Amino acid sequence: MYTTYIFGLNDTLYNATEQKSRARFAAVESMIENGLPVDIETAYTTLEEVVREVGEDAPNHFNLLLKRLGVRDDPRIIAAGVVAYRDVSRAALRPFPGVPSTLISLREKGKRLVALSAGDAVKEWQKLIQLGLQHFFHAVWVSDKNPITADTINSALSGLTVTPADSLFVSGVPSEVEAAGRAGLKTVLFSPRRVNPPKDTRGDKPVIRRFQEILQL
Amino acid sequence: MYTTYIFGLNDTLYNATEQKSRARFAAVESMIENGLPVDIETAYTTLEEVVREVGEDAPNHFNLLLKRLGVRDDPRIIAAGVVAYRDVSRAALRPFPGVPSTLISLREKGKRLVALSAGDAVKEWQKLIQLGLQHFFHAVWVSDKNPITADTINSALSGLTVTPADSLFVSGVPSEVEAAGRAGLKTVLFSPRRVNPPKDTRGDKPVIRRFQEILQL
Repeated sequence: MYTTYIFGLNDTLYNATEQKSRARFAAVESMIENGLPVDIETAYTTLEEVVREVGEDAPNHFNLLLKRLGVRDDPRIIAAGVVAYRDVSRAALRPFPGVPSTLISLREKGKRLVALSAGDAVKEWQKLIQLGLQHFFHAVWVSDKNPITADTINSALSGLTVTPADSLFVSGVPSEVEAAGRAGLKTVLFSPRRVNPPKDTRGDKPVIRRFQEILQL
Repeated sequence: MYTTYIFGLNDTLYNATEQKSRARFAAVESMIENGLPVDIETAYTTLEEVVREVGEDAPNHFNLLLKRLGVRDDPRIIAAGVVAYRDVSRAALRPFPGVPSTLISLREKGKRLVALSAGDAVKEWQKLIQLGLQHFFHAVWVSDKNPITADTINSALSGLTVTPADSLFVSGVPSEVEAAGRAGLKTVLFSPRRVNPPKDTRGDKPVIRRFQEILQL
C-alpha cells in the first residue's frame, strides 16, 4: 500500500461540473423571474460562453451576461442571479458518496493525505471547508497556475516532501491524472459518472468507479 | 389613510444589526477553529473596528483583520471566515415578524409600496431577494450615498413621483425617520427591540413596536 494519497479537488472530492451547471441554471432562471427578457436556453448558453471567455473566477459574469444580451444594467437582475447562484451552489456542494468515510479509513491506517488544487487559494479553501473536508488533510496545496500540470505537481511534491514512489494520485480529471503520471506518480482515475468503463483506460491505467475502491489499491 | 408607504430596509424589514453581529461572531469563531491564534473577544472586537474603519461593503475585512492582529496571511483562515459569515448571514436574513403579512395587506388595500435604501445597489437588491420581499414593492430606490439623508429622500420622492402629503415613511433607524421628517414626510419609528417605548418619541413622533400596527395608522 501507499504511504501518501494525493487528491485532486474539483470533480474528485465533489461533483464540480454538476454543481456549477445547476447553480448557473438556477441563476439564469431567477434572473428571468426578476426581469431578464430572454428565454432560459439563450440565457444559459450565453452565460456558459461568458464563463468560458473570462474564466471561472471572474467577478462579473452576470454583468457581462446582460451586456452580451444587450440588456440594460439592472441591479435587481444581477442580484437575483447572485443570490440563486450562491444558494444552489452552496446546497450542491457535497462530497461524492464514499469520500468522507474513505478519507477517515485512510487516516486510521496512518496514511498521509494531501489535497491538490489550482486557482484562487481562498476560493479553493472555501470549497474544502464547505464540503466539511478541511480537517481530513495533512496538507493542502493550491497552485495559482490553473489547470494542474506536471510542474504544479512537481512543486507540490518537493514543497511537501512527498516521495513519488510511495504515493498514489487520485483524480476525476483525466488531464490531471496524465500530468501526475508525467510527474512520476502512480495514478488512478476516479470515474463515477460513466456507466461503462472507458475503453482507453484498460491495462496500466487503473480506473475506479466508487471512491471506496481506493482502499483496495 | 395614506396612499404610499415608504420603507427603509436595514433594521426595518429585517434585523440587520443582529444578523451582522451573528455572522461576524460565527466568522471569527470559524477562523479560530481553522488556526487564527487569538481569543474570540479579541477577534470579534478587532473585526468590528476594521468594519467601522473601512466600511460595511469593503471586500477584504478578514484580510485586514489578520493584518491588524499581526497574523500571516492564510487562505485557510480567510476562507473559514468567508464561509461561516455567508452561511450564518444567509440563515439570519429573515423578515421581522409581521412584515410579509402587513405588506400583503397593504397591497390588497391598493397602496403603493416603496423600499428605500442606501449602499451598493446589487447588494441591497440581494437582501430584498433573500428576504423574499422583492415582489411586494412597486418601486425600490437605492441611493449610492450612505446613509439615507433628507436629500436622498427628496430625490427618491421626485424620481418616483410620490406626493409627500399622502405618504408615510416607516423605518427602524431613528436618523432615517428624522431625515424623512425633514423631507416633509409623515413618519413612524418602528422600534421592535425596545422593551419600553422611548421617552423622546411621545407626542408628534409616533412609534410602533409591532410591524402590523402600520395597518392602524
